[in-house]
Amino acid sequence: MKKITSILCLLILLIACSKPTIDNQITVSNVEELNLALKEVKAGDNIVLTNGTYKDVEIILTGEGTKNQPITLKAETPGKVFIEGTSSLEISGNYIEVSGLFFRNGHSPKTNVIAFRTSEKEVANHSKVTNCVILDYNNLERDQDNLWVQLYGKHNEFSNSYLAGKTNGGPTLRVDLKGNQSIRNFHKIINNHFGPRPRKGGARGETIQLGSSFTSMSPSNTLIANNLFEECNGEVEIISSKTNFNIIKNNVFYKSEGSVVTRHGNYVTVDGNYFIGDGVNDQYGGIRIINTGHWVINNLFYKIKGKNFRSPIAIMNGIPKSPLNRYNQVTDVVVAYNTFVDSSSPWQFGVGTNIAQADVLPKSEIRSARPLRTEVVNNIIYNSEGDANPIIEHDKADGVTFASNVIDNNGVEVENDHGLITKDLTLTDIGSNLSVPTSGFDDVEVYKGYDFETIINDLLGNSREKSNTIGAIAKAGDINLDLLDKSKYGADWFSNEVEEKEATTHAVTNTSELVSKLKAAESGDILSLNDGVYNISESLIVNKTITIQSNGSAEIVYAGAANTPAIELHPYGKLTVKNIKLKGTGSQQAFASLKKNMSNHFGLEVLDSEISNFNYALKVYKQSFSEEIIFRNTSISDCENGLELSEETNDRGDYNTEYLTVDNCTFTNVKQNVIDYYRGGYDESTIGGNLLVTNSTFTNSGAKEKNGMLLNHRGIVNVNINNNTFKNNNVKFVSILWGAKNNVESNNALINSGQIKTEENLKQTLMY
Amino acid sequence: MKKITSILCLLILLIACSKPTIDNQITVSNVEELNLALKEVKAGDNIVLTNGTYKDVEIILTGEGTKNQPITLKAETPGKVFIEGTSSLEISGNYIEVSGLFFRNGHSPKTNVIAFRTSEKEVANHSKVTNCVILDYNNLERDQDNLWVQLYGKHNEFSNSYLAGKTNGGPTLRVDLKGNQSIRNFHKIINNHFGPRPRKGGARGETIQLGSSFTSMSPSNTLIANNLFEECNGEVEIISSKTNFNIIKNNVFYKSEGSVVTRHGNYVTVDGNYFIGDGVNDQYGGIRIINTGHWVINNLFYKIKGKNFRSPIAIMNGIPKSPLNRYNQVTDVVVAYNTFVDSSSPWQFGVGTNIAQADVLPKSEIRSARPLRTEVVNNIIYNSEGDANPIIEHDKADGVTFASNVIDNNGVEVENDHGLITKDLTLTDIGSNLSVPTSGFDDVEVYKGYDFETIINDLLGNSREKSNTIGAIAKAGDINLDLLDKSKYGADWFSNEVEEKEATTHAVTNTSELVSKLKAAESGDILSLNDGVYNISESLIVNKTITIQSNGSAEIVYAGAANTPAIELHPYGKLTVKNIKLKGTGSQQAFASLKKNMSNHFGLEVLDSEISNFNYALKVYKQSFSEEIIFRNTSISDCENGLELSEETNDRGDYNTEYLTVDNCTFTNVKQNVIDYYRGGYDESTIGGNLLVTNSTFTNSGAKEKNGMLLNHRGIVNVNINNNTFKNNNVKFVSILWGAKNNVESNNALINSGQIKTEENLKQTLMY
Repeated sequence: MKKITSILCLLILLIACSKPTIDNQITVSNVEELNLALKEVKAGDNIVLTNGTYKDVEIILTGEGTKNQPITLKAETPGKVFIEGTSSLEISGNYIEVSGLFFRNGHSPKTNVIAFRTSEKEVANHSKVTNCVILDYNNLERDQDNLWVQLYGKHNEFSNSYLAGKTNGGPTLRVDLKGNQSIRNFHKIINNHFGPRPRKGGARGETIQLGSSFTSMSPSNTLIANNLFEECNGEVEIISSKTNFNIIKNNVFYKSEGSVVTRHGNYVTVDGNYFIGDGVNDQYGGIRIINTGHWVINNLFYKIKGKNFRSPIAIMNGIPKSPLNRYNQVTDVVVAYNTFVDSSSPWQFGVGTNIAQADVLPKSEIRSARPLRTEVVNNIIYNSEGDANPIIEHDKADGVTFASNVIDNNGVEVENDHGLITKDLTLTDIGSNLSVPTSGFDDVEVYKGYDFETIINDLLGNSREKSNTIGAIAKAGDINLDLLDKSKYGADWFSNEVEEKEATTHAVTNTSELVSKLKAAESGDILSLNDGVYNISESLIVNKTITIQSNGSAEIVYAGAANTPAIELHPYGKLTVKNIKLKGTGSQQAFASLKKNMSNHFGLEVLDSEISNFNYALKVYKQSFSEEIIFRNTSISDCENGLELSEETNDRGDYNTEYLTVDNCTFTNVKQNVIDYYRGGYDESTIGGNLLVTNSTFTNSGAKEKNGMLLNHRGIVNVNINNNTFKNNNVKFVSILWGAKNNVESNNALINSGQIKTEENLKQTLMY
Repeated sequence: MKKITSILCLLILLIACSKPTIDNQITVSNVEELNLALKEVKAGDNIVLTNGTYKDVEIILTGEGTKNQPITLKAETPGKVFIEGTSSLEISGNYIEVSGLFFRNGHSPKTNVIAFRTSEKEVANHSKVTNCVILDYNNLERDQDNLWVQLYGKHNEFSNSYLAGKTNGGPTLRVDLKGNQSIRNFHKIINNHFGPRPRKGGARGETIQLGSSFTSMSPSNTLIANNLFEECNGEVEIISSKTNFNIIKNNVFYKSEGSVVTRHGNYVTVDGNYFIGDGVNDQYGGIRIINTGHWVINNLFYKIKGKNFRSPIAIMNGIPKSPLNRYNQVTDVVVAYNTFVDSSSPWQFGVGTNIAQADVLPKSEIRSARPLRTEVVNNIIYNSEGDANPIIEHDKADGVTFASNVIDNNGVEVENDHGLITKDLTLTDIGSNLSVPTSGFDDVEVYKGYDFETIINDLLGNSREKSNTIGAIAKAGDINLDLLDKSKYGADWFSNEVEEKEATTHAVTNTSELVSKLKAAESGDILSLNDGVYNISESLIVNKTITIQSNGSAEIVYAGAANTPAIELHPYGKLTVKNIKLKGTGSQQAFASLKKNMSNHFGLEVLDSEISNFNYALKVYKQSFSEEIIFRNTSISDCENGLELSEETNDRGDYNTEYLTVDNCTFTNVKQNVIDYYRGGYDESTIGGNLLVTNSTFTNSGAKEKNGMLLNHRGIVNVNINNNTFKNNNVKFVSILWGAKNNVESNNALINSGQIKTEENLKQTLMY
């Protein structure tokens, strides 16, 4: 019997150890099996993850596949394999393919979610990650920078994937060039859908970064093609190209608050892309150019209203003999065959000139070197409403050749036209809600610069060799583009289109219901409070989109511990308060974010309400971020502190909210930090936050403010203080505005309240 | 008659205008005919310059040749067409070929002698200048910088030519990258003989420069191959590569006082070159590396004794985040498969570190960034006399991987060996007076770095693919190189080998003979003066190599005008004075250069002589330069000034002599400027001049020196003051030495003569 058991055991062991032979398929159903399968892989192996959730798994796949026998790791059903918790994927070797995975509900324990290497020396080549999704897979703190996808090695592909919702610092995807193992990489980043990346509040929120200034001399040859960038609002740069010979081609940039920026490196081709705005939002940008030899050709700019850094074509001034990590002069750049429709002042030169700030900045920061040997030719501008200034020279464009450019400005005279040829053009519907001039300029002689014979196709891929014209579209005919059909991009099993759902309103009659219904409500729901007083002693927690409102005089009275909030805003907590009286007992906070682990943004809108008797009306802690905070028709009174958003003191350009709007409010007897909103660090490319204070009245406030200033907004780039009344506030200044930036005030009444002063230049810590 | 005359005239005119049809050959015999022929050229035209001299001719050849029908400009007999006076050659268009011209006896009226363009926008492509010579074709002043050959455009060739004797500022040949018309140029600079370029004394004396820091981001792809560089001593850089992707291959660097330097730009390949020294001269250098991605492979270093900046492999420290025109950090560099024979301390790291000078230099000048991700592998070092320090770390080489390197150090223990494998090797004669180890290391495993599979050949062009070893020569067998056969390089009709000629000695008995025979003598001749006094009242002019000597007590007494020299040194004037008493009447100069138009170097050696009663013993004017000035066994007495070489005050690194040697001399009653030798400007890559003061006695001198210093040598890099006696000189300092550079003193007796002080760091004007 013993013998038989032994034999049986051996047999079972043998069966357990033997891998299925059909196609070398290895099916695994849990982390342990997966790790076992990954221990030793060989060319032709196909590891299949059965559908389900894999939690806290650090997948490390190393192997030597071949072109004909790649090593694959696949979801049984694409999209039905969920990688959650603290998980990551690293691959190295040759011909590795991973597909069908969904990263969600967690974050990476490493510096990347997906890395094309398993150690510094072991990189992936000829490998591919495709048809995957990473959604909201954020680190717990905004300052814990990481990357979601990092490419190393050569000839790799990241394709047909959907990435969205990154809120912490660090580009969503980066190509690393350090070491000869990763140069001339010819990576392909294609057919992806880069979904919404929320505003980060400060730098380090790029969607794609190609290298860094320290590898900006290396040839990269990365291709970014046929991707959809939708609402990529992380920061001022959507794609930050920092290496050489990259190609950015046929992508759609849709309502994205940033630009394609040739930040470092040279000879990048930006060819045949669509920049689509809405004609209103002035944060949607185009292409910002720094350095040498870039070719910006065949692009269409549609209703792009970005200005200055975000203008459709922003050609920057450089720093003479610039340090490696700053701004090289623009030389030998070609901007040709582009079409601009209803885009404001699309060509801007000398962007970033800061000669006026020579007193507050070191010489090595002064951008005074104008573009050289640059050609802006064969372009078309069409403006339904004429734009007197299609060309803006922040500094002289005397190193730029303009030729064969056409404008239809609908009758408005152009100032400073640099030879623009006026034509009467008509718009043609080309699909995707785009109307573009496609004819009427055949008689304009095409300018031929050096190497222009290499521009063989137009925006639509039609040949320019036989019949050529200026503008992005060389050949008319029926055109029916389908650029915004999202099914053409990203993972084939995932859509970010959500059905609008009717908000459910929950009636609340007492405190206990308030607590329980808030907890039970679905995101988007409304709690409607009956009139009456709701006494609470523990913070109400908001971790979804919620409206708390009443018809008239519902009053929430909070008697919780000192320095705890009546309403605590957690990640994803987007709160609207309407028609509510919120009272404390003097020592608490009305609203506050979490002190830590704010792994996603919050939001706050306070309307028609009254806030009184708190230590803080609003306390936003470090590393918490809201895209918008609005107080409207609301009174704040008898508080020790008002709206406090000033903990981002690392001076790396960060701040706590993109927009802080105070409209038609009253602040009465708020003793200090009435409004305190801070951004620090000299960072010319961070162009937020935004403070709007309008139609409001401030009375008997700010008396305890140590710096003698009522409204503190040091370092905030856009400030507008307009039509307010300041009365009997014992302060020296209501505000000191930063003149060199976009800080303005008008029509304010100051009665016994100090003054508003403008300082042109603000001394800031250098970030670089 | 009138009619016949008219017809005849018309006929003559027609004949004159009609071009010969055979091969489209147009023969021209003078400048006018040449200009006429150049007015209109077409594909297939062949302009032939008949033999003779063409003076003051600015040749501008523009045309559209084709590959099969180039436009050519040729000498009737190569080398028999002399371009003289103020002349130049410019070509543009396509498929232009110029050959057989000899530029001499003059200088260019333009910024180039030969330019591959005719205007900024009109460049040459697919064009060639070949089989030409430019000899001593210098501007009149050393500071009038120019270039002899400047390449623009693309796909051009400069080949089989001989260039030598450039003494004025500016590289001999430069490739220009400004503008898209000149990038990715794939120029070929091949089979040339770069003959002696004398020491220039300061910067701007490169033999070849590829671009500039301002175009250092551009791809150049220039090939420099199969050239002989002989005594290219202009400055510390023989080839200064400042752009990307250049290839420097199979060249011979023979007794050249400089290095191949990857000064700016990246990814340059230095492959299969021969660096040949004499085992003595420590100015002969190798390869100095700055920036990213260079590959230094398959090179042979033979008896190269250069140190530090000029060491065989000098890997520099960079400036963190360097400005564009300074020193980028070394990263991703490969130094593989090289062989070093009898070359001192061939591998030096952190060259140029100047952390110690942080007090006298701005932060943006401090080279503290050590090499990163650099591989030094598969190399062989052979030392007939063991070298305890083959590897010198001026700063830590902690970013460098060492592997598979072999040394035969003939028994001497190696300090700091970084894993060097000791082997017993034997030398094999491979021809050209080179003995190199070619076997005995087959068992050493070859290190395989990233992309090493692209190193397919060894130094001799043998394949590494089948059988590979470390070292420059992968495959032994009989090797008989013929590297120094000069007929393999340069113009086929020109040789720089001159027959040694016996010096003729001319006996001189009186002043009139002295003047007439000096004038009549050939270069190299000797004037032998009988004893007696030679009274002269006009300067003796020396414009060739001449020795003036006597057997005992010949005395030259000069009574000419104040501040004129007894002996005036003109361009090419190389004077040796031996056993002569030279006396003035107090107001004159014993020796002086020209005040202007010193279009070539002079030289001076004063032996066993006496100089007295002058205002200056030696006065060297600005822009005059001598490679060597020697005073030996000579007394200088009763002069207002001694040796004065201090007019190069532009602080761009220039100076008036490479070597100033004072040995076994006496200076008595020389009131000021006893020795005054100046170099100004902070320029780490100028490593001259050289002052040697030995075995000499200075008495009662320097009393009128305003700065209280006897020996002034501010900014001179190499100073050695050794074994001298200083007695009763009324000065505060005999010398202030520059400690951070190579300034030393020893064994000097100071009697009532102040002191010798060392200052570690000298504050200098920044040159950049």
